[in-house]
Amino acid sequence: MGDRTFRIVEAIYPGMTQLDFTAPHTVFSRIPGSETIVASEPGGAIESEGGLIFAGTRRLAEIDRCDLIFFPGGLAVTEVINDPAFMAESRRLAASARYLTSVCTGSLVLGAAGLLSGRRAACHWAWRDMLTPFGAIPDSGRVVRDGNIITGGGVTAGMDFALVVAAELAGEHFAQALQLTLEYAPAPPFACGVPETAPPDILAEVKRRLQPMLPNRLAGVRRAAARLTAPVENQVA
Amino acid sequence: MGDRTFRIVEAIYPGMTQLDFTAPHTVFSRIPGSETIVASEPGGAIESEGGLIFAGTRRLAEIDRCDLIFFPGGLAVTEVINDPAFMAESRRLAASARYLTSVCTGSLVLGAAGLLSGRRAACHWAWRDMLTPFGAIPDSGRVVRDGNIITGGGVTAGMDFALVVAAELAGEHFAQALQLTLEYAPAPPFACGVPETAPPDILAEVKRRLQPMLPNRLAGVRRAAARLTAPVENQVA
Repeated sequence: MGDRTFRIVEAIYPGMTQLDFTAPHTVFSRIPGSETIVASEPGGAIESEGGLIFAGTRRLAEIDRCDLIFFPGGLAVTEVINDPAFMAESRRLAASARYLTSVCTGSLVLGAAGLLSGRRAACHWAWRDMLTPFGAIPDSGRVVRDGNIITGGGVTAGMDFALVVAAELAGEHFAQALQLTLEYAPAPPFACGVPETAPPDILAEVKRRLQPMLPNRLAGVRRAAARLTAPVENQVA
Repeated sequence: MGDRTFRIVEAIYPGMTQLDFTAPHTVFSRIPGSETIVASEPGGAIESEGGLIFAGTRRLAEIDRCDLIFFPGGLAVTEVINDPAFMAESRRLAASARYLTSVCTGSLVLGAAGLLSGRRAACHWAWRDMLTPFGAIPDSGRVVRDGNIITGGGVTAGMDFALVVAAELAGEHFAQALQLTLEYAPAPPFACGVPETAPPDILAEVKRRLQPMLPNRLAGVRRAAARLTAPVENQVA
């Protein structure tokens, strides 16, 4: 990873799904020769979905550059991709980074930043199609790599994603030792983690519950996508 | 779950392994008809291993009772099980709870509280034998149930553990829908999450790295275990 400290920036925001971020943080914060910075647009305390409050986050604007940028997902991502301040700082830091990464709907941030045009990316199964308006190619893989872009699927894909990133940055030997240290030999109680294996009634119920959120999220994605093709002077405002 | 709100208390402490707590919180905070309280002995901000700061935790002493108590693990658990204030509040709340639960070395808290005598419990593979001084029966299961005690193995077992708890509290149908919502179809990059499957050189290296911590942790466990068999008046101090 070269001579200087490898800098990882985790760009979080109010309403994020905290596990999208906390599982990768467990891995990233242990990568030798790296520093992991938890940052947000306003800085300070950030409350996630589920009520956890993460204190002491740095301001994105205070960070001059990074080697890897990471975005978690969450229901609030639709607002975040339309927040000019968050997106301007994210775009600036992403331009300095060697790796662009995300978990769950965090890939919509990469998309809204104009970084996924013609690139394959993962996303939560329920919202994966929302990558298309950004010119991205939705991929159902749990961890998807396309060049310098490494993305994970929904929420719990964050651990698989982060260990793949750890292997890339610090080698397979390190990633294997970390997997053993974290006792990552998962044993899900049910075989229903993806639509393909879930019982039809369970899948129908989850879809029914998510359905009311769809129009608003799709409108948010389209608004952000329209900004990508707008004249440059309009993107900054 | 009865008429009144089912109260879950997550008892956290400085130096805990945050994923032990954040993965179960993702599940617990979504269980219908329940409230999830993040609490600590001092209250306020708690910094975990890996540098995440959880703000706004309630004081354990302010909580009158709960239905389920949960303890995460972490390297700092050895100090915590010898902290009279933390242990007194944990013991009091555990006495009010219907379910006693933990992830990773969090089971050492249950042990030090005198709640595991003759009971089977899970723990991180590297520290599992430390349950024995508390009269507990170490179990290599990823999620172990013994009556009202439900415990998970090391760190990442928290998701499997929490979904088992969700099925117990809200039914299998709910737990399955949640597993699908969280896209929990894990795909670990390596087959080395437990000593039994890890390559011998990886296992030897992780053991070598943990070895220096062993004497201090064992001394802490023995100190806490000795208190269990001491006269009652000495246990309070």
